[in-house]
Parts: sequence; C-alpha cells; structure tokens
Amino acid sequence: MINQLQNILKDPKLQPYLYKKRIGLEKESQRVTLSGALAQTNHPKTLGSRTIHPYIQTDFSETQTELITPVFDTEKEALRFLSALNDVLLRSMPEEEMLWPLSMPPALPVDDRDIQIAKLENQGDVNYRRYLAKVYGKRKQMVSGIHYNFEFSPQLIKQMYDLSDQSLLLTEFKSEIYLKVARQYLRYRWLITYFFGASPIAEDHYFIMDRPNEPVRSIRNSSFGYTNRPEIKVSYESLDTYVNDIEHLVDTGALIEAKEFYSSVRLRGSQDLQELAKNGIQYVELRNIDLDPFSTIGINQKTLDSLHLLVLLMLWLPEEEKSVLEREQEGVLKNNTVALEHPLALTIYQEEGNWLLQELDQMIDALNLSDKEKSLAEELKDQFKNPEKTLAGRYVKTLEQTALSNGEWAVSKALDYHHAAYEKPYQLAGYREMELSTQILMFDALQKGLKLEILDEEDQFLKLSRGSHIEYVKNGNMTSKDHYISPLMMENKVVTKKILATEKFSVPNGYEFSSLAEAMNYYPEFESGSIVIKPKSTNFGLGISIFKASVSQDDYQQALEMAFEHDSQVLVEEFLEGTEYRFFVLDGKTKAVLQRVPANVEGDGCHTIAELVANKNENPLRGTNHHTPLEKIALGESEAMVLKTQNLDFSSVPTKGEYIYLRENSNVSTGGDSIDRTDDVAEGYKRIAEDAAKALGAVVCGVDMMIPNIKQASIRESKDYGIIEANFNPMMQMHIYPHQGHSRRLTRDVLDLLFPEL
Amino acid sequence: MINQLQNILKDPKLQPYLYKKRIGLEKESQRVTLSGALAQTNHPKTLGSRTIHPYIQTDFSETQTELITPVFDTEKEALRFLSALNDVLLRSMPEEEMLWPLSMPPALPVDDRDIQIAKLENQGDVNYRRYLAKVYGKRKQMVSGIHYNFEFSPQLIKQMYDLSDQSLLLTEFKSEIYLKVARQYLRYRWLITYFFGASPIAEDHYFIMDRPNEPVRSIRNSSFGYTNRPEIKVSYESLDTYVNDIEHLVDTGALIEAKEFYSSVRLRGSQDLQELAKNGIQYVELRNIDLDPFSTIGINQKTLDSLHLLVLLMLWLPEEEKSVLEREQEGVLKNNTVALEHPLALTIYQEEGNWLLQELDQMIDALNLSDKEKSLAEELKDQFKNPEKTLAGRYVKTLEQTALSNGEWAVSKALDYHHAAYEKPYQLAGYREMELSTQILMFDALQKGLKLEILDEEDQFLKLSRGSHIEYVKNGNMTSKDHYISPLMMENKVVTKKILATEKFSVPNGYEFSSLAEAMNYYPEFESGSIVIKPKSTNFGLGISIFKASVSQDDYQQALEMAFEHDSQVLVEEFLEGTEYRFFVLDGKTKAVLQRVPANVEGDGCHTIAELVANKNENPLRGTNHHTPLEKIALGESEAMVLKTQNLDFSSVPTKGEYIYLRENSNVSTGGDSIDRTDDVAEGYKRIAEDAAKALGAVVCGVDMMIPNIKQASIRESKDYGIIEANFNPMMQMHIYPHQGHSRRLTRDVLDLLFPEL
Repeated sequence: MINQLQNILKDPKLQPYLYKKRIGLEKESQRVTLSGALAQTNHPKTLGSRTIHPYIQTDFSETQTELITPVFDTEKEALRFLSALNDVLLRSMPEEEMLWPLSMPPALPVDDRDIQIAKLENQGDVNYRRYLAKVYGKRKQMVSGIHYNFEFSPQLIKQMYDLSDQSLLLTEFKSEIYLKVARQYLRYRWLITYFFGASPIAEDHYFIMDRPNEPVRSIRNSSFGYTNRPEIKVSYESLDTYVNDIEHLVDTGALIEAKEFYSSVRLRGSQDLQELAKNGIQYVELRNIDLDPFSTIGINQKTLDSLHLLVLLMLWLPEEEKSVLEREQEGVLKNNTVALEHPLALTIYQEEGNWLLQELDQMIDALNLSDKEKSLAEELKDQFKNPEKTLAGRYVKTLEQTALSNGEWAVSKALDYHHAAYEKPYQLAGYREMELSTQILMFDALQKGLKLEILDEEDQFLKLSRGSHIEYVKNGNMTSKDHYISPLMMENKVVTKKILATEKFSVPNGYEFSSLAEAMNYYPEFESGSIVIKPKSTNFGLGISIFKASVSQDDYQQALEMAFEHDSQVLVEEFLEGTEYRFFVLDGKTKAVLQRVPANVEGDGCHTIAELVANKNENPLRGTNHHTPLEKIALGESEAMVLKTQNLDFSSVPTKGEYIYLRENSNVSTGGDSIDRTDDVAEGYKRIAEDAAKALGAVVCGVDMMIPNIKQASIRESKDYGIIEANFNPMMQMHIYPHQGHSRRLTRDVLDLLFPEL
Repeated sequence: MINQLQNILKDPKLQPYLYKKRIGLEKESQRVTLSGALAQTNHPKTLGSRTIHPYIQTDFSETQTELITPVFDTEKEALRFLSALNDVLLRSMPEEEMLWPLSMPPALPVDDRDIQIAKLENQGDVNYRRYLAKVYGKRKQMVSGIHYNFEFSPQLIKQMYDLSDQSLLLTEFKSEIYLKVARQYLRYRWLITYFFGASPIAEDHYFIMDRPNEPVRSIRNSSFGYTNRPEIKVSYESLDTYVNDIEHLVDTGALIEAKEFYSSVRLRGSQDLQELAKNGIQYVELRNIDLDPFSTIGINQKTLDSLHLLVLLMLWLPEEEKSVLEREQEGVLKNNTVALEHPLALTIYQEEGNWLLQELDQMIDALNLSDKEKSLAEELKDQFKNPEKTLAGRYVKTLEQTALSNGEWAVSKALDYHHAAYEKPYQLAGYREMELSTQILMFDALQKGLKLEILDEEDQFLKLSRGSHIEYVKNGNMTSKDHYISPLMMENKVVTKKILATEKFSVPNGYEFSSLAEAMNYYPEFESGSIVIKPKSTNFGLGISIFKASVSQDDYQQALEMAFEHDSQVLVEEFLEGTEYRFFVLDGKTKAVLQRVPANVEGDGCHTIAELVANKNENPLRGTNHHTPLEKIALGESEAMVLKTQNLDFSSVPTKGEYIYLRENSNVSTGGDSIDRTDDVAEGYKRIAEDAAKALGAVVCGVDMMIPNIKQASIRESKDYGIIEANFNPMMQMHIYPHQGHSRRLTRDVLDLLFPEL
C-alpha cells in the first residue's frame, strides 16, 4: 500500500492538508561567562524546579540549558515561543552570563571533574548522566543542537488513509508513514548535514585524540560527535523491529536504557517502548540539526521550511530495493563523509544530490505546491552548487572576513544576543506586539514554569496552568479572582461614587446631567466653587475641564458643551486639591503607589526645550503606541499650547534646574513621568485604598486618589483625600518600569494570587 | 432669629438649594373584589413576611395595604417607585381582587367582626390595633390616604444656618425650621383640604350615627374622619413642648402610645421621643392628603409640586402674634369647616385664602422662583375662585356627568387600574424604559421584599439588599456570582471554542482568518463541506452566510467579503445540522430550554401574509425596541426577499395550516417565536449544557446548541449535538414570557441565587 503513496499524495483531496503539520522544537545551549568561559554557576534559581519546569531544563551538564516548546501548527508559532523561552532564560541567568551560540561547546576545562553533571533532584537522572559520562566521556555530552519534532496533520494522515486500500488499520498505516520517512531520512540525511551543518570547528579540550585538521561541515554530525558505538544497530524496517532491537540492546546491557539509543531520527508516541508498539508512532524527532549561530535562537524560519519540504520529499521518494539495514548503513556512511567535508568544498555525492533535488522539483510540480516551496527548492539547488552559501560555508567565510577566531566570533555573537535581550527588558521576544503587561506576565509565567497557551493574541487572552490547576488571564490582570460585578461597577463612575460614598469614603460631590439645559440650571451652585466638568465615561482625559477658583457662566457652558461632545452624560464634580496617586491594590493589599507627573523637561541653561525633549525621549523606557512603559514626549499642538500659556515655545532655553511642563494632564500616555511612591505614602492611605477596593468587591483595583500630603496619617472618614476613580484593569507596566523609584513586579503578584502553590 | 427668615431666604446664596428636598410617600388602599366588596382574603402570601417587607405592609385591617417608598430627591422618582410598588401589589394579589381607589372605604360589613384586624406576626402590633378598634371603632380605621414625608435639603438648612445669627446650634436651628413649618401648616392646612380634599361621600356602614347630608370636600379630614378626641392637645411651640405633651398624654393613659397621636403633621427624626428631643427634627410627615381617585397611585406630580410650594409658603409666612395653642385651635376649626363644605361651593375663608395666595405670589417673586412655580400659583388661584376645579369639585362633577353612584364609579376606576396592571405583565410601572429583564427582576425583588436601589438606570445597575447582605446586579443577571474571566471567555468565540474543545465538547471545527487572502487559501478544504462563514464577534446575525452542501469559490469569496465588512477576524466553521436551542444554565442547573423559530405566520386560506402578520402582531407580547418579550414581525426588505425565494409576496394567501417563514434567522429580535422546550429535551443535553457552563467557569450562561433530536439521550463525547456559542448575559424575558409553552421565572432563580436566605 505504501508504494502507492505518490498516487495518494497527488490526489486533489489531499491538497488542503498537504502542508499541515504540528511541530515542536528543543534547543540546547551552554551557559558561559561574558568572555566565553563555561559558567561555573548553578542553573538559575529564578527558573524554579527543573523537576517540573515544562519548558526550561538542563541537559547533560549543569551549564547545558535546554528549551522545549509546546507543539504548534506552524513554524512561526514554534519560533515565537522558542524566542520567548530564550529571552526568559537569558534574563533569568546572572547578568554576567550569556548563551554560547554554537553547537560545539566553548573551551572546556582541562579537568573533567570541572564539568558539572546537571544537579537534578531525581537521583536516577543523575546516575544516567554519570553513566553517559563514563561510557562516552563528558566532553562529547557538551555538544548542543536542535531537535525538530515533526507530525503530519492528523487530517492529512486520515485523508491519505481513506485513499489507501485500507488493508491496514489507521494506526498501523500511520506508523508505516513515519517509518518510511524515518528510513529515508536516515538514508539521505547527509543532505541536511550539507545544507545546515554548522559545527565546523571545536574549541580547546573537546577532542581528546583524533581530530579533523581543518574546518568541516559538522563535527557534531560526524563520528566525532556524540554517536552510539557502531555495534548499536536498530532496524527501522517495522515498528516491531525498532522496538525489539532496542529492547534487546537494553536487555543485553549494550544500552543502559532506551533513550541512550541516539539516532538522528527517533520514533515517538510514548516514552514506553511497549506502549509505542501498541499505540503506534505519533511523530518523529529529528535530532541532527546544528545550532545556527547566525540566529539568536539557533534556528530560523527558512531552515524549518526547508526541513519540512525535505521531510515531505522523504515521504514522496520511493525506497531503494535494498535491505533496510543496508540502506541505514549507507546513510551513516554518507552522512559522516559529508559532515567531515570542508564547508567550502562541493560534496562528493553530486550525483545523488542532484537526483534528490530533481525529485524535489518533480514532487513540487506533482503536488502542486506553492511558489514559496518552489523558491525554497531553487535556493537549495543554488546552495548545492555553491557550498559557500550553505550554513557551514557562510560560517567559515565569516570567520575569514572578520579575521576572528572561532571562539572570538562566538563570544561577539553571544554578546550581541545578550545585549539584545537586555535592551528592552519589558518586552518578551516573539510577542512584542502584545500588550506590555501581558508580555511581562508571560515572562514571569514562563520563568516560574507555568504552562502557557495564548488563546487569543489580539485579545491578550492567556491560559496558564500547573498540573490540573488552570487559570485564564486577559489583559494581564483580568482573572477568575474578580467577581464579574466589580469591574462593571468601576466601569460606571456614578455607580462607583455612590457605592464609595455610601461606605463613607471621601469622594468629590457632584451631579450627573443628561442635558445642557439641566446642567445650566445648576450654575449658581457651582459659580464660586472649584469644579471639574467631565464626560461620564471617558478614560483618556478627553473633554475634561477644571476650574480651580470660580467659573463664569459662559465658561461653565462651554466646558459642558465640550464634555457633552464626548458622552451623553456629563458629571460636574467638586475639584479636589492635592496630587493624584494611583494605588494598585491586589487581593486586599496595596502593592504599589505611583505618582504621575505631566510631560516635562528639566532645563540645563543651554539646550532648547525641543532638544531637552529629544534627549529625554532617548530613554529606552520611552517609545510609542504603548510598546514601552513610558511614551515619548511629543512636540505637537497641545504641547505648543501649554508652552504658550507660559510664554514659551519649543526653541526656548530653560535655565538650569528649571522644570518646564509640556502637558497639563499627567497621563503616562501623553509623555508623563511615573514615580514610584510606595514607600513614601502614609499607611493610612494604603488602608483607605484597600478598603475602597473591598467596598467595590474588587480583587484587582487601581484606586486614583487626590492627596495633598501623602506623609500625613489619614482615616476613611477624614477629608484629607478624595477618591477620583477606581480602575478594574489597572496598568501594571508603569509600576514595574517607573521613570523614577523602585520597580514593583505586579505581574508576579498576579501569578502568586492565581497560583498560591507556586 | 427665625423672624429674619424672609431675609435669609431671599439671599442669592440660597438660590441653588431653595428647591432641593427629599421626599418619601406612603399610600394606603383597601383590597376589594372585582365588584367592589371588601376582600375576605389574607394579605398575599407572595409578598412574603410583612414583618420584614420594607415597602409593602398592611395598616389597620388585613385588607388595608400600605405602600412605603424610600426617600428620593425628586417627586418624579418617588412617584415612579410608588407606581412600581402599586404594580407589584396589584399583580401579587389574586387576579380577582383590585385596589379601592378612594380614601373612604368601600361598603363595610354590617358586622364589625367581619372587618379583620391585620394578621401581623407581632402580638404587640395586633394588640395596638385591637385597642384602636375599641377606642375609635373599626370603621374609622378603614379610611386610607397618602402620607407625604418632607425634608428640606440638608444643604439648604446649612446655608440658611450660615446666614443666620447662629445663636442656636445647627440641629436646634433645623428643629426650629420644621416647628415653624408644622405650626403654620396646622394653622393653614384648610387650604390643602380645599384644594386636594377628595373624600366627599362615604359608602354604606361607614357612618354610625351623624353624617353630612350632602357631598363634602373631605370626610377624612373632617371630624368624621379618624381624629383624636378633642382633649388630646399637643403644643408645637417647641420640640420640648411637643415631646413633653405627648409623653404626658401617654403617661396619663390618654394615649396608649405616642403613635396614637394622630395629627396632620408629625415631627419626625426618631421613633423614640427622647431621641427626637435629643437629635432634633429631621423631617415632617404630612398626613392629611386624600387619595386622588383620578390617579392610579392616588397622587400625581402636580399635587406633589403644589404641596412643596405650599410647604415653602409655610416657611416663608410670618407667624401671627397669637399663642401657639390658639393658632392650632383655629387651624382645627377652619380645617373642619372647609372639609365639610360642599365641593362646588366657594369656601367661606375667602379673605384669608386670598391673602395666602397673594403672599404666595410675593414669595415667588422675592425668591425668584421659576415659571413652573408661577404657573402652579396661577392654577391654585384659579381653583380658589372656581371650586369645581378642585379635586373634590371634579370628583362630584364626574359623578354627575357619568350618572354613576360613588361606589359604581369607584369600581369602574379600580377596574381600569386593575386591567392596566395586567395588560403588559412583563413591564413594571414607573420603569418601563428599562430593559425588560431588569423590570421583571425588579418586580420579583420588590415582591420578595428586597430593598431596591437603582444605581444607574441607563446602565440597568441595581443594588439589592436584605439586612446587611448587599448584592449588585447589572442587566438582570450580571452579578457577583460570576467570575470576571468567564464572560470575557464567552465574549470571544474563538476562546470559548478552544476551551470547550479541550474539554471534549462537540464544537464546530473551523478556522479564524484575519485576511481574505488567507481565508481563500483554505477554499479547497471547505469546497465540499457544509460551512458557516461569520464575523468573529457579531451577535446579531449580521454578516453570516451558511452553505449547507458545497460552495463555489465565488460564493465562498463573496461570503468572506461580507463577513470581513463586520469584523477584522472571520470564522469559517463546519455547519452543524439540527435545530438550535438555547439552554439557560444557572448555578450548574439547566433552568430553561428554548427553541427559537424564525418569524412566521400560519395560513388560514383567506388572509394575505400581510394580514396574518398584522394579526399575529396584535399579541401584547409583541412590540418594538425590546419593550416586550417578543418583537413584531416586520414587513420590510429582508422579509420580502425571503418570501421572494419562495415565490411569495406580502399579498400572497397561504393555504390553511401552511406555515410561511418570513426570515431565515431565528432571532427573537427579528420577529421570531420562542417555544419553551424545557420539559421536552433529554436530560443528557441538559447535563452537557451544565458541564459546558462549568468548563467556562460560568454561573449564568446561555448555551446555544444545535441538536437534531432532542429526545435522544446524549453524552458530552458524542457527536449528536454541537455547541455554537455561550452567552454571559443571556436574555431572560423570552423564557419568562415565551410565545408557546411554560413560563420559566428565571429572574426569581437569579434572586434565589443571590439571596439563598429568601
């Protein structure tokens, strides 16, 4: 049946599913110092227990980190997640450490004992590594790479099965598919080594005796890499032979356990071989991918696309009329040869290579694949003719061009990646378009070892879990911990005020109007007071007017008209004196207090306001469109107007130490500063904010208070404060990365609230 | 100081506060049969315990209901609440009972023993009534009226105090203000009796011996009403004299307790007289208002406005230079005289009346009151000259014109009010502009005796309470019982589906696309299937296309384009066969199952479709703009189109029994029918809906399921159903008032959930 595969694959019914798959990535790297020496530190404590961390582990040595992504439908998603994990790992390590970007390890200690086996909790895991160290030597275990887990879409398999003669059961059919791919991959994997081999040179103390004399395509994929001894032979003829051969090797003591069988292709479906035999193969793990040193995360989209295309080719190609073991042996031989060729040399397997690439073209035609696959095939053909365009070729060319040693270049690359990770620490690689608070929360969740799934990216909707405990989070702090009615209360300023007033909190007196005429009737009441006129439900400071002493009837009317432009309901409230503070209350505790200051610059007596703004805007905390914790100060109409009222313009030069304000509102979104005041504010006010959140039934609550003197003690019934507003989805990033003062890692508090077991 | 009052009142600073007040209303009425006989039934059980009901009580007899509103800032709000209470009372009584619209009771039983004293739980309350029956006779206790509780705005009192010489404390000043109003009111209340007296005639067995020979202005306010014996004298000279006089009367046994002192003005502030003396007067209770039989609820806005104006006049008028008791006596005398004048006769107190109305004009000028008050004053002057325009005057005129007896007319009015209450039972009088579900919930809350406050009407935001237990409700079923994250999940169709799919529920397979190009790539996958194409987040059926068999590439593209017009994200999903049902799940239980049927008419072989629609639309359950549980079927473009596909138009005449559908979608909002199926659907499906709600963490959840056969047993993992959508604020009115089948009173279930102690 499997021989009709080409006909089946060509069936138009398969078209929609041909390119569907599920993939997962694993990536190992060595932790090194900023000068490239193997790190002597332990695996970072901030990453929690390796026993349960689903994504960040250690492989053989304590310094050899391993990142494991969940399974995704697209390469893009897998790469994004891997980027994020890489980012989390980098920023969880001491700032004086970085990740070695090469498959071949950095210069190793002279003394074997200085290579620390991973300090895992499970003694069995440690013993297994001790055994490996003894049998293969610690040095070979220090090599890193990428594992590419690949599954055809279940829909594709099902459609293929439906088109087959159905002489097998579906699970058997599926296993046959993967066995064929595995056999062909083992036979032709030299092509992968040719294109993507990237371990030409080893640093000191890797080789013990023999070594290549000059750069090669892939030390890791050659006999100098970590391979089983030649007598370890496993037949991929059938799932039974595979399972039986490995079991026999284990039974006879040739392998300590099944996972010691280190092949370029592992058949996956269950950890237990008997289970695998019973349930069939679910996917394959391709383990021969070197780290791409040109990529921050060791692999890129194009390589993954090419791998997918070549896997498809393996499925497509008819198998040779030779015994399976014979073909496996040929595969080992050719791969070793190609791995040890010079990166800039043509491979000696020109004929087979050309034939394979021709078959690839034919397959692309026959299967009606898209232009994308066609151009990928063109590139592969080009690289086949021009070895300097392969990964290893580019690698050695780069060393030539930079005149750097392999180690020096690796250090410089690693430093680049290290700097990039720290440049905007509030962002999470792979997810930079999401809301900042969500990015930071995701960082913390990944660091803590929570399982993370993005249910809806646009909506900032996350699923977090640990074991059977599932929590959903939207926009960083909208969770199951709050009752639905609380945010609805806070969304409505009038309701919020009524509830707080009933509970004896100080809130500004005022009225709600639904028509200008009605509001005008109340003019006499407001004439001599200080008032604020605002639309009932805007949140961006739009349509708000403040009169601090008295207000003329005309001004009153004008302000009302403006407010009514923004909402059909307008509030006229007593204006409270003091400075505005945001109290971030979580689960009954004030976790952070922030003062927001309108956009401003401090004069130095020689620069213009425009120059001072430009200078202040260089702070990496400032950006645009909320991709940074603070926004750049604009030089727009509003700012010009505010300056004008002070008889200034952008070219004015303020004196040294003089503060010039460019905005009246203190919103961070219009270039304002944020100053952490958590430790400055009197406890009484914190208590008030906590009690107000409680009155609103809120677990997550941003309470905005006007306070003339934050040092003064206060109680709820006093009048030395006023609650302006309560927010049900308060920003977190401005507390975590304030312009001035301590950072308050509120995202971690949210996680602690959701997962008290952490 | 109190003599400078006119100057103080004229101060411009007072302007904004002059017209501010707080008022509360109480209204008594007798329950009668539809023919006007005193009801023999007990107070309705559905109204719960009278011991704790805050709003609906009984007064002297078991048939004498009493409605009590909370305190409001405006007459309008007080009247709305009173209307609502009246509506709740009427529909909580047996449908064969109504409320007697007159102050004077209906014909009373010949035997006193047939007048049942209210069957209250507290024996003391019963004993008090037995005592009253003994001392005053049961018949006089059967008279009903309105009590008008009036408080000047605290801001007004405060401003007045600030302008006074401040020789008194603020609380003393306040008491003085109310004492003055009380004294003047007692002195001049004959004017109120003149204008608003409305008890000219008594039915049988009210009078025992003496009686007026012809209609009078107000039997209730005359010596024939329920008044204390003449020896009961209390001086309103000061708060002390008031308190001491009453205490003395109680001590000497002249009164059984303080509340037996029945005056037209009661000074209020505390139930306990010593407390009242200590804390001062907070407001006054004016008790001499007859029920206005022309008003459903016994009083209207204009009367309340006039009362307010006259109360202000009492504050304004300088007091006569006579002793307080002398003035009180004069007041009693004049009031009794006016009460017993013929309603169509001019009062004999022309001079004093004209002087008072002149003073009223002067006050209006001096205080710069608005046109509204001026025109009210004009009307009062007009009525003073034309007694037939007073309430009692209109009353006797109406009897003349209708040629009905007093009792016959009262019965016909009562029947009108009774019918009006039952006409649209899904609405709540006073609040007909609010959402139906909220109106029904308010009805149930008032019926159950929960305290109700509307925090924001436009937002349908309610505060319900019982003792210290407070619950907030928005839009009828958004409460503290749901976790915030659940509605957020349900708001997002993709997230909902992912979560349900993970938990093994059957949901339609499909994809989410953010561009037309991306969606077009998937065409081959959908080509031969049945699919639905819809915008990600619309809820009104807009932009949705359904293809039941296969779809051409052009149609597929067109449908996508239409969907993208409504949202930037479009879903293409497997179309599920079957009928759609809405499962309303509350707190883990399926409380109702509804089938919605597209707008349709059943032919009768002689009427056109347009006529059949018009006929069907006459059902009072159908209306427009969601003010009814069902919407009228439109005869618009969409309906014409749907008919056209069936080769029909509005003038076609369907055969007898033929069902013609005018819409494709089954939304109730486009004229669809609702059919209760709660008892028809197999338990398995209910379980599935309950489990789905649980998976979404939802306490309130409307689960929409496609089911081919509702009788068939089913389990979650089966494929004989599909969950289309989950709704976090599911409509309740369509289950409560379905087109067909049983009513499911979901609002009561919501209240039971919120207040399990009920």
